[in-house]
Amino acid sequence: MAEQKKMVEAITPMEEDFAKWYTDIVKKAELMDYTSVRGCMVIEPYGWAIWENIQHILDQRFKELGHENVSMPMFIPESLLNKEKEHVEGFAPEVAWITMGGNEKLQERLCVRPTSETLFCDHYAKVIHSWRDLPKLYNQWCSVVRWEKTTRPFLRSVEFHWQEGHTMHETAQEAEEETQRMLGVYADFCENELGIPVIKGRKTDKEKFSGAVATYTIEAMMHDGKALQSGTSHYFGDGFAKAFNVTFQGRDNSICHPFQTSWGMSTRIIGGIIMTHGDNDGLVLPPAVAPIQVIIVPVAQHKPGVLDKAQELRKRLKKAFRVRVDDSDQSPGWKFAQYEMKGVPLRLEIGPKDIEKNQCVLVRRHDRQKIFVPLDQLEQAVAEQLEQVRKGMYEKALARRESMTYSAKTLEEFKKIADSKPGFVKAMWCGDLACEEKLKEVAGVSSRCMPFEQEHIGDTCVCCGKPAKTMVYWGKAY
Amino acid sequence: MAEQKKMVEAITPMEEDFAKWYTDIVKKAELMDYTSVRGCMVIEPYGWAIWENIQHILDQRFKELGHENVSMPMFIPESLLNKEKEHVEGFAPEVAWITMGGNEKLQERLCVRPTSETLFCDHYAKVIHSWRDLPKLYNQWCSVVRWEKTTRPFLRSVEFHWQEGHTMHETAQEAEEETQRMLGVYADFCENELGIPVIKGRKTDKEKFSGAVATYTIEAMMHDGKALQSGTSHYFGDGFAKAFNVTFQGRDNSICHPFQTSWGMSTRIIGGIIMTHGDNDGLVLPPAVAPIQVIIVPVAQHKPGVLDKAQELRKRLKKAFRVRVDDSDQSPGWKFAQYEMKGVPLRLEIGPKDIEKNQCVLVRRHDRQKIFVPLDQLEQAVAEQLEQVRKGMYEKALARRESMTYSAKTLEEFKKIADSKPGFVKAMWCGDLACEEKLKEVAGVSSRCMPFEQEHIGDTCVCCGKPAKTMVYWGKAY
Ligand SMILES: [Zn+2]
Ligand SMILES: [Zn+2]
Repeated sequence: MAEQKKMVEAITPMEEDFAKWYTDIVKKAELMDYTSVRGCMVIEPYGWAIWENIQHILDQRFKELGHENVSMPMFIPESLLNKEKEHVEGFAPEVAWITMGGNEKLQERLCVRPTSETLFCDHYAKVIHSWRDLPKLYNQWCSVVRWEKTTRPFLRSVEFHWQEGHTMHETAQEAEEETQRMLGVYADFCENELGIPVIKGRKTDKEKFSGAVATYTIEAMMHDGKALQSGTSHYFGDGFAKAFNVTFQGRDNSICHPFQTSWGMSTRIIGGIIMTHGDNDGLVLPPAVAPIQVIIVPVAQHKPGVLDKAQELRKRLKKAFRVRVDDSDQSPGWKFAQYEMKGVPLRLEIGPKDIEKNQCVLVRRHDRQKIFVPLDQLEQAVAEQLEQVRKGMYEKALARRESMTYSAKTLEEFKKIADSKPGFVKAMWCGDLACEEKLKEVAGVSSRCMPFEQEHIGDTCVCCGKPAKTMVYWGKAY
Repeated sequence: MAEQKKMVEAITPMEEDFAKWYTDIVKKAELMDYTSVRGCMVIEPYGWAIWENIQHILDQRFKELGHENVSMPMFIPESLLNKEKEHVEGFAPEVAWITMGGNEKLQERLCVRPTSETLFCDHYAKVIHSWRDLPKLYNQWCSVVRWEKTTRPFLRSVEFHWQEGHTMHETAQEAEEETQRMLGVYADFCENELGIPVIKGRKTDKEKFSGAVATYTIEAMMHDGKALQSGTSHYFGDGFAKAFNVTFQGRDNSICHPFQTSWGMSTRIIGGIIMTHGDNDGLVLPPAVAPIQVIIVPVAQHKPGVLDKAQELRKRLKKAFRVRVDDSDQSPGWKFAQYEMKGVPLRLEIGPKDIEKNQCVLVRRHDRQKIFVPLDQLEQAVAEQLEQVRKGMYEKALARRESMTYSAKTLEEFKKIADSKPGFVKAMWCGDLACEEKLKEVAGVSSRCMPFEQEHIGDTCVCCGKPAKTMVYWGKAY
């Protein structure tokens, strides 16, 4: 097992340097590579396959709810970006500008889309005429660009991939319901498919999206206690519709502005998967999005019948699972370490002794549990184990989040926790920006969200002592 | 049927103005919309659904052949684009340049990728070390940008969507085989899934891709006799590998350069579908990529039982087909015209009399044939009819291409055909650029390809009379 050890030692332990642990995994599991363009990455086959699996599941859910995919241009003329005041103020400082086409200087600069509200509104103004045209439920899968100064793989990059849903509705209520519904889709996807527990809530005004009336978020806790905003859903009212002159004839023949939402989830969630489930041996992938769900490792594969049996099992399993055999010349120990690094949820070991007993061994990545399985029950056992893995990963992550979530009633208590314990702090808030800014200053935290599930921790704001309006999750964030 | 007529009259007949006919269909079938960015379009839900179906089929075929999807950055630094001389000369005049990020001027300009050979090579230089790392079979689905002066929906736009495969191989022979194999995938897809007959062949040096050793193409003939280059596959030798210093340790331990291919198919093919199969009533879609394969139109839908029956049939059919019921208040005549415009391959009509007889009516879009089907044989009948449509569309297109393909032995004959008859001209060629340029000048045609299936039309070049080397398809092209 010398090679195995060597490989495992090659990852920096997370306790030693969490940031290094993260980038080690990203590189060694071959998820991405850096490029000669600052902040832009190559997403390699194994990383992209995870994203394709995420896309597949989410896209199906969006379509079941009546959404349709479209494709908008990647460029936004400066004048179009400028139409909604708060929006442009939020995004203009971080966009990339095209100023030349071929050898000619452009009359008007174009930015590479940082997000596409303006493009969707421009189109909606043309295709929405009557209440009969509503709702419009559009989504697109694409990449967007934000000129970030400091970047980290998946978590913050100049170009990143996402989906952005943009919908228009006849009434404010319908749009608000859509905003909540899509937040619910994200939360359900994170918890039930990715095993990532999330806190659903509303962002404070300070943290909301530029131009939105309300921003809702799901916040997950990473291994190091920091928060990752994992998906957002925005309610816009009719502000953009007015700025872009999107109108429709209502049921009473009056001219109205529709009500709007947008919602997005990005490749950032891959960073969330790594930092929620990963350990010092590498990646741990949820079965729903793992490019390989079962890796078959033949033991003593030179012995007659072993490789044949391994291939036979692969053929049986591939009808229902993503499965591969590694029949390379590497030792079983190397293979064990390699696919642990790659986070494959289940390892199937099959050797001469197993064949004699008409069984095989399944080993679960997330808790190393070993299960001996009679070969005639293989399909069922794999399905059951993957389901156990799904639940087990969620429970493990939830237990950790709970053990790293604290309540604070006084500012002193708040500072003490924030200084000494990584994690979330629950505390009451009066609703004033000044207190939010002060907590940032004295405790280094930002408001993560005002959770839908409120708790009554006290009557007064943890910061200023005035009457409290709401309980807030506070924390350091990616 | 007054409404139906009115709707049909709204498309310009192709005989009157082919270009207008084309854009009428694109707009009225709701495939795309123009935007405020010159040459960039919104691909609307119905158009994007066609592209998603194309993606799904091709992606599956690529993966079956061992290709893996990745994602490269959308930006290329100027210095990287400049590394291969012929390549940069071909593309630099038509790229969009980013010169500003946020409020800062960039030290080095970045272009938005017009194609990604340079990015793939830059990455391959880092990940290819040994012959054991080969072949590398990567593909990506993305959009690219070329600063075209004149644009047309799907056919030529500033931004367009495509897939680009980029592979590296140990030997020249393996790379050449890959080039041919992928051309074969495109040809098979066009002919068997899209019903578009294509001519496979090699491009002349004048028409080949900037930086390639050889470019292979599939050429389709549109309704107006013009050619559409529908997919290309390039062999690069080791030219890029040398320019980008991609090396590997060979089996004999020597340091070698790998051999490279790239191949692409784009949203242009949607233009090809429109112009191959469309008619004066609108779009005609091949079943494999039609967003709706069967549209159920209830007749006398206010009569008891009709809508229930229509929904019952939809439920039966949706297990195997993309099917919808139009139960809106529009008249059946309006619906017939509407889904003919949208190119739905099969219409299913069901009314009280049909229900009495326990039957329904199927009407094929491409040849208007009506088939009465007993309801207990519905699934089988729909499957059979869609197969008939697939074959029928191909045969119809093939017959038209054959009737519009001519041979010329002399320059005079060549000019006469090119002047008077839209279509392809087959003629012998000596291989000299001068003759290629002269035919462009005197007959307005370009060489489409040197087909793999050669014919012996004569011994001498149709232009200069010197000994001929090869038979070439000539034509006007999109
Ligand atoms: Zn306060
Ligand atoms: Zn000649």
